[in-house]
Amino acid sequence: MEDHTLIKDKVGQAIAILREFNVDCWITFARETVLNGDPVLDYLVPGDLTWQSAIILSSSGKTCAIVGQYDTQSISDIGAYDAVIGFVEGFRKPFIEYMATLKPRTIAVNYSKESEVCDGITHGMYLTLVDLLRELHLEDRIISAEEIISALRQRKTGRELASIKAAVRHTEEILLLVGDFIRPGVTEQQIASFVHRELERRGLGPGWEAATCPAVFTGPDAAGAHYSPTTRQVQPGHLVNLDFGVMCERYVSDQQRTFYVLREGESTAPREVQRGFDVVVRAIESSRRAMKPGVRGVDVDAVARGITTSAGYDQFAHGLGHQVGRSVHDGTALLGPAWEKYGQKPFVPLEEGMVFTLEPRVTIPGHGIATLEEMVVVTSGGAEYLTRPESQLLLIRP
Amino acid sequence: MEDHTLIKDKVGQAIAILREFNVDCWITFARETVLNGDPVLDYLVPGDLTWQSAIILSSSGKTCAIVGQYDTQSISDIGAYDAVIGFVEGFRKPFIEYMATLKPRTIAVNYSKESEVCDGITHGMYLTLVDLLRELHLEDRIISAEEIISALRQRKTGRELASIKAAVRHTEEILLLVGDFIRPGVTEQQIASFVHRELERRGLGPGWEAATCPAVFTGPDAAGAHYSPTTRQVQPGHLVNLDFGVMCERYVSDQQRTFYVLREGESTAPREVQRGFDVVVRAIESSRRAMKPGVRGVDVDAVARGITTSAGYDQFAHGLGHQVGRSVHDGTALLGPAWEKYGQKPFVPLEEGMVFTLEPRVTIPGHGIATLEEMVVVTSGGAEYLTRPESQLLLIRP
Repeated sequence: MEDHTLIKDKVGQAIAILREFNVDCWITFARETVLNGDPVLDYLVPGDLTWQSAIILSSSGKTCAIVGQYDTQSISDIGAYDAVIGFVEGFRKPFIEYMATLKPRTIAVNYSKESEVCDGITHGMYLTLVDLLRELHLEDRIISAEEIISALRQRKTGRELASIKAAVRHTEEILLLVGDFIRPGVTEQQIASFVHRELERRGLGPGWEAATCPAVFTGPDAAGAHYSPTTRQVQPGHLVNLDFGVMCERYVSDQQRTFYVLREGESTAPREVQRGFDVVVRAIESSRRAMKPGVRGVDVDAVARGITTSAGYDQFAHGLGHQVGRSVHDGTALLGPAWEKYGQKPFVPLEEGMVFTLEPRVTIPGHGIATLEEMVVVTSGGAEYLTRPESQLLLIRP
Repeated sequence: MEDHTLIKDKVGQAIAILREFNVDCWITFARETVLNGDPVLDYLVPGDLTWQSAIILSSSGKTCAIVGQYDTQSISDIGAYDAVIGFVEGFRKPFIEYMATLKPRTIAVNYSKESEVCDGITHGMYLTLVDLLRELHLEDRIISAEEIISALRQRKTGRELASIKAAVRHTEEILLLVGDFIRPGVTEQQIASFVHRELERRGLGPGWEAATCPAVFTGPDAAGAHYSPTTRQVQPGHLVNLDFGVMCERYVSDQQRTFYVLREGESTAPREVQRGFDVVVRAIESSRRAMKPGVRGVDVDAVARGITTSAGYDQFAHGLGHQVGRSVHDGTALLGPAWEKYGQKPFVPLEEGMVFTLEPRVTIPGHGIATLEEMVVVTSGGAEYLTRPESQLLLIRP
């Protein structure tokens, strides 16, 4: 039942968003979603759909699902759709009939060059939808649903925020335990296995694919981000990074922590290590202070990027932060530089309810990477930490 | 390493298929694949890709992956790609440079109105690809990759067939154990939990989403297919169906079995129950015998549909069978009737190496559904069972 409440909340929110953006109708059109799932379906239905299926929401408040006969029962159970129309032989007839009664002036469809979370319809399904709407002379009313889906994902409800906070608490507890487990000689893989056992003990899943959650990097010669843990051993003098998140009530967290492994005779980290770490802490706190509704991500990114490069470090090869929610990389607005691959995302203004990571990094030659990843939520007047921000380099004593 | 062998096998097979169909170049173009994964990526890369990424295979034998910097290491590790090109700021430049050297006459792209497994590119990514190819005046060389992906998925290698057979063996062993567990009073959910515990004991996953794998239906008033197990209790006189598969070495099985729960004083099932079950057995064996390369699925479906309807039962509201492989609903060719939702799929000729289910069903009023689902592989001269075909109605004694 918990799931259905979430779906009902988000369907209601979607209708308000249609009215706000003056869009008549929003169609999510998918098939065999276990293979080709539109990422927005998680907000609209509780499981997979098999044959061609459409979820049609209208600014008038009408809500409709047209699905294969075998999926009608589970969709009706949600209680979010006034009309649940099943079919056996073909999708065309019920869809044409329903759309003929609706006669929308604008039809938002889930495609976007810019934003992957708003780009759920496949090209083949888009062609089919155009064919069907052409029968009603409605094919030229299609617009991108990018602004609708972006708003729906980024405006976190209280329930969504509570789930993210629960995921953050688990992540922080597990990262604390990892600090006791790390010692010279353990491998990246052993650290990851320790984390996986802890997840299992708590009955929780990882925030993203288990092969790289946690990602674990030790020392100056570690592989880059997005790489699975290796048999490389922790050694004195290493910086050890974990990039780790938890899925809790279907929402995720995404955090990073850095440990320094003291060498014989050391009681603190070497000055160059401490300095790099402190720059990361300062970059995070300064960029958080720059955040509030209406500010653009490119300007927030510039704060952290400026602090790290003016301290003499190479700029980090990624955006300062991304949204987090149902997915670890969520939403359209991004805290990032004006790089081609980010398109217009860094220029989307921040809005209350958005959840972002802040994850600058610097390389300390001979030791590894100093990095942290904190999470913040944009409020009416600024941004607040969802994580307990780390200000101390975590020391591993021999 | 096992995974990489599979990928290398399939990349090699893909190049041979490009030559066979006289297609110069095949591009799989995706981003943030954890959200919007193209189903063919499983055959090409071992994990998720983050930024815009292209896998470009050529009939000349050239193999290239253009991926974000953080994904280069894991893609290089596969050993299937001559060129692994990483980028930090944007995909455009390396892609344009590579395609300019290739100058292909035809460029197959993963879209299809007909076949969901061949319809992996999102509409937004398609628009981006057209924009990029336009810069090279190549945008009018795009064709659908449907026939390439269909061939790649349906022509099972020995290694793929061995994995499917392993999944089938586990499924059959677990279904045998279920027969000892079913008794009057147990609920559909308890039966499903028993199966999930057995999967866990074996360290295996379900063949599709756990909520409906197994699907369990007991008695005449059970919910339709694709519905999660309920608290409905098994009672004497019920037919109990399980629809269940296992994932083994990343390939799946998909089988159904029917149990009859004897009533006080019965030692065999009532005549109408046995008769319906026997019709299902005959429909499966007769349709298997009708299968061989070159035959169309619509004609195989007609054999089973004819046997069940001429025996006086309503026709089953779904195709006789679908392909199985990496996904439970796999491939383009289908054993199905000429219904709108199946499009041209039932008219695709069978080919050696295809793996199909055969799953006719009949309703026995007052008792439930009699059904079986067997799996077969198309051989050079016919079709062979991958499952041990069930010819006996399984009886549950009180």
